[in-house]
Amino acid sequence: MTRPLSVAVAGLGTVGGGVLAMLRQNADLITARAGRPIAVTAVSARDRGRDRGISLAGLRWYDDPVALAHDPAVDVVVEVIGGADGPARALVEAALAAGKPVVTANKALLAVHGAELANAAERAGVPLAFEAAVAGGIPVIKALREGLSGNRISRVAGILNGTCNYILTVMRERGREFADVLADAQKLGYAESDPSFDVDGIDAAHKLAILAALAFGRPVAFDAVHVEGIRRVSALDIAFATELGYRIKLLGIARQTEAGIEARVHPCMVPEAAPIARVDGVFNAVVAEGDFVGRIMLEGRGAGAGPTASAVVSDLIDIVRNRVTPVWGAASGALSNAPSVPMEAYVGAYYLRLMVVDRPGVIADVTAALRDHGVSLESMLQRGRSPGEAVPVVLVTHEVRESAMSAVLARLTALDAVLEDPTMIRIEPA
Amino acid sequence: MTRPLSVAVAGLGTVGGGVLAMLRQNADLITARAGRPIAVTAVSARDRGRDRGISLAGLRWYDDPVALAHDPAVDVVVEVIGGADGPARALVEAALAAGKPVVTANKALLAVHGAELANAAERAGVPLAFEAAVAGGIPVIKALREGLSGNRISRVAGILNGTCNYILTVMRERGREFADVLADAQKLGYAESDPSFDVDGIDAAHKLAILAALAFGRPVAFDAVHVEGIRRVSALDIAFATELGYRIKLLGIARQTEAGIEARVHPCMVPEAAPIARVDGVFNAVVAEGDFVGRIMLEGRGAGAGPTASAVVSDLIDIVRNRVTPVWGAASGALSNAPSVPMEAYVGAYYLRLMVVDRPGVIADVTAALRDHGVSLESMLQRGRSPGEAVPVVLVTHEVRESAMSAVLARLTALDAVLEDPTMIRIEPA
Repeated sequence: MTRPLSVAVAGLGTVGGGVLAMLRQNADLITARAGRPIAVTAVSARDRGRDRGISLAGLRWYDDPVALAHDPAVDVVVEVIGGADGPARALVEAALAAGKPVVTANKALLAVHGAELANAAERAGVPLAFEAAVAGGIPVIKALREGLSGNRISRVAGILNGTCNYILTVMRERGREFADVLADAQKLGYAESDPSFDVDGIDAAHKLAILAALAFGRPVAFDAVHVEGIRRVSALDIAFATELGYRIKLLGIARQTEAGIEARVHPCMVPEAAPIARVDGVFNAVVAEGDFVGRIMLEGRGAGAGPTASAVVSDLIDIVRNRVTPVWGAASGALSNAPSVPMEAYVGAYYLRLMVVDRPGVIADVTAALRDHGVSLESMLQRGRSPGEAVPVVLVTHEVRESAMSAVLARLTALDAVLEDPTMIRIEPA
Repeated sequence: MTRPLSVAVAGLGTVGGGVLAMLRQNADLITARAGRPIAVTAVSARDRGRDRGISLAGLRWYDDPVALAHDPAVDVVVEVIGGADGPARALVEAALAAGKPVVTANKALLAVHGAELANAAERAGVPLAFEAAVAGGIPVIKALREGLSGNRISRVAGILNGTCNYILTVMRERGREFADVLADAQKLGYAESDPSFDVDGIDAAHKLAILAALAFGRPVAFDAVHVEGIRRVSALDIAFATELGYRIKLLGIARQTEAGIEARVHPCMVPEAAPIARVDGVFNAVVAEGDFVGRIMLEGRGAGAGPTASAVVSDLIDIVRNRVTPVWGAASGALSNAPSVPMEAYVGAYYLRLMVVDRPGVIADVTAALRDHGVSLESMLQRGRSPGEAVPVVLVTHEVRESAMSAVLARLTALDAVLEDPTMIRIEPA
C-alpha cells in the first residue's frame, strides 16, 4: 500500500469539518480515484476544546496555523480559515514558500492577493488550488480553466451569492421587503449576523474577480470590479419586473468589450425565459460563452459543508494525480494584460422607478431630462392615480451609456416632484 | 520556443474541420493555456480531393487512418471518424499500442469497446481522452470524473441527444406529430437521413453507458442499458403531459439502487418545474447527484463543429499539461464490479394512455386489470365523450414495479375495448 497523502487542515468550521467528514466517509472511493489514500494528519483551529462532532483523535494539533506549513510530515495544506489577510494569508504564503501544495476555499484571499500568490506558487513550482472558492461544489474553476481552455471567452456571468439569491427569491415569491426577509434569513442561518459581505455584493465580487481572471487569462483584479448590493431592491421593483417579464437577480458579470474587460456585480433584470432567471433560492449558477463552445451553464449549491468539501477533496485528488494547472490558466509570462474598463463606459438598457407627485407637468419634466441626455425610452408604466400624492412611475430605456444615465439620475433626483432617490436597475440580456 | 505538440487528425468531417479551425484560430491562447503550441501535422480522411473549406497545405496525408498511429512524427492521435468498429477502432487500438495518447469524440467506440480500450491505454501508460463523446462542449466527463471525484454519486441523468430534444420541443410548441417534425428536422440538418441512431435512443444509450461508468466507477456496460426511443411519443401524449404538469423528454438515467446499477434511456415525463424540463431545442443537459455536492446540472450545446472541437482541444491541452485521469476514473484494479439491474426490477410511477371504445363497463375492465396486478391509480383523465367511438383515457399510477406494469399492459392490450397498443411513459421525479 502506498503511503497516504498527508493533509493538514487549517480551520475547523463548517467547511473544515466537511472536509474531514468526506475524506473519512468516502475513503474507499477517494483512494480509488486518487490512486492513493488521502488522510488528514494535522489540524489547526482557534479553540481546541470545542466539540465539533468529529473526532480529532490521532491528529497533530497546532494553535498557530502557520506551523502546519513547517510540519515536515505534511504534504499538502488545506486552508479553510477565510479572510483576505491574517492567518489565512500567512499560512498560504508560508506553505507555498515551503514548497507545499495548497488547497483553499478562500475567495477573498484569491481575489485580493491572488496575483502575488500565483507568482509565489509558480516560483515554488507547486499547485495552488481553489475550486471551492467560487460556487461551492459546482466545478466552475475546472470548467473554465480546463474544460473550455481552447475557447476565447466573451462573457462569464453568474449568481454567485446564495444568500442574496435566497433573499430575492423569497421577496418575489412572498411579496415581502428586503429587511424583513433578511431578518428571517438570519434566523434560519442563511445569512450572517453581519450580512454586509453578502448583501452588499462583496462576496460575489470576490468570486467574479476570480472568474474574470480565469475567463480572460489575466491576473485577478478585484479593485476593477464595480460592486452594488441588493439593499435597495424593493418588493415594488420586483413586482414591476415580473410585470415587464423580468426577474431581478444579483449577477456578477465579466465581459470582453472592445475597450477591455468589464467586470461588475449589481442587481440585474434578466428576461424570465433566460435559464439563469430560473435559478432560485440558495442555488448558484455560472454561464460562460466561448467562441467555439457557445453558451454553457452550470448550476448547483454554492455553499455549505458538503458542496465546499466536495470541491476541496476534488482539488486534493487532482494534486495526488498530478493534474496541475497554473493559477490563472497560463504561466505568468503568458497572461494577458487586457485593461479593465470603468463602469462609466458601460452601455446597456435601464429600468428606472421614480416616486413622483401625481400632478400635471411632472412626466414632461422627467422625459425632458431623458431627452437632454440623449436617452430614449422603450416603455413607461404608471400605476394608479392619486392626485397630489406619490405614485410610482417606471421607465425602461433603450441602450445608453452609464455616464449619461448617471447624469439623468442626478437631474431627476433634483426635481421637486421626485420624492425619493430614483431606483435604477440595469437590464441584462439573456 | 518549445517544439509544438504534433497532432494527427483522422476524419475531416464537421468535427475534424472544427478541430483544425479551432487550433488555428485560437493558436495564441491555446499555446498560453497548454504552455506549448499544438499543431496538426497529419490528417486522414476518405476523399482527398473534397473541398472542406480549410487548407490542408503542409499536412501529411494518409489514405489509411491507421498509418497515423505509425507516423513517428505524430505525438497524439485525434480520432473523429466515428463508428464502434472499422477504421476508428483499428486506429485507436494501433495508436495506443504504439504508445501514443488518443483523443476521440467517438461515443459508440467507447460505449461498446471502452472496457478493453481502457485496459489497452492503462497497459501502454498513455491517456485515452473522450470529453467530446458526451454532450459536446459541456465538460461533463471532466465534471464527473474530476470535479465530483470525491463524491459517491447516486444518480446521473441527462438530455443526451439534441435531435430528439429538438423534435420533442417542436412537437410540444407546435402541437405537431413526430413523423412530421422529423421530416422537417431532416431538411434543416438537425436529423440524419437515417435517423434511427438518434430517435431510437441508441446514441443517447452510448452516452449514458459512458456517464454511468464514470459516475459509478466501473467498466462501461453498454449491453446493460435499457433503450427506448421517441417514435411512439404522440402530440396527444405531449398535450396530456402539459395538462398534468409534465414535460416529455428523452432522458438517459443511471441510478445506484440497492440491487446494483440501473441504466435506461426512454421518454420520461418530468415535472415542468424541474430544471431539466426547461432545457429545450438542441441543447443537452446532465444532472448529477453526489452525497456531498448535492445536485448539479450542466447545460449547453451537445453537438456541432464548434462545441465538439472545444471538447477535443481541451483534451489536447490536458495532454500537453500532463493532466491525466484513468479512463473510468480509477485504475482497472480499483474499479467497482457493481452488478447491473434489469429493467424488470425498475420501480416508478407510470403514465398510460389507452384509446378505448366509449361504452359502459370499459373503465371497470381497465381498472380491474390494474387492481389484479396490485397497481394503484393516482389519477385518471377522460377527455370528451363520443358514445361508441374511440376516446383517450389517461391513467397515472403510483409507484409500481416494471414487471407488474408489463403484465398490466399485456392484459389491457388484449381487451376488446382497447383499440390500439396502450402508450406507456415512465414518470421521472425531478
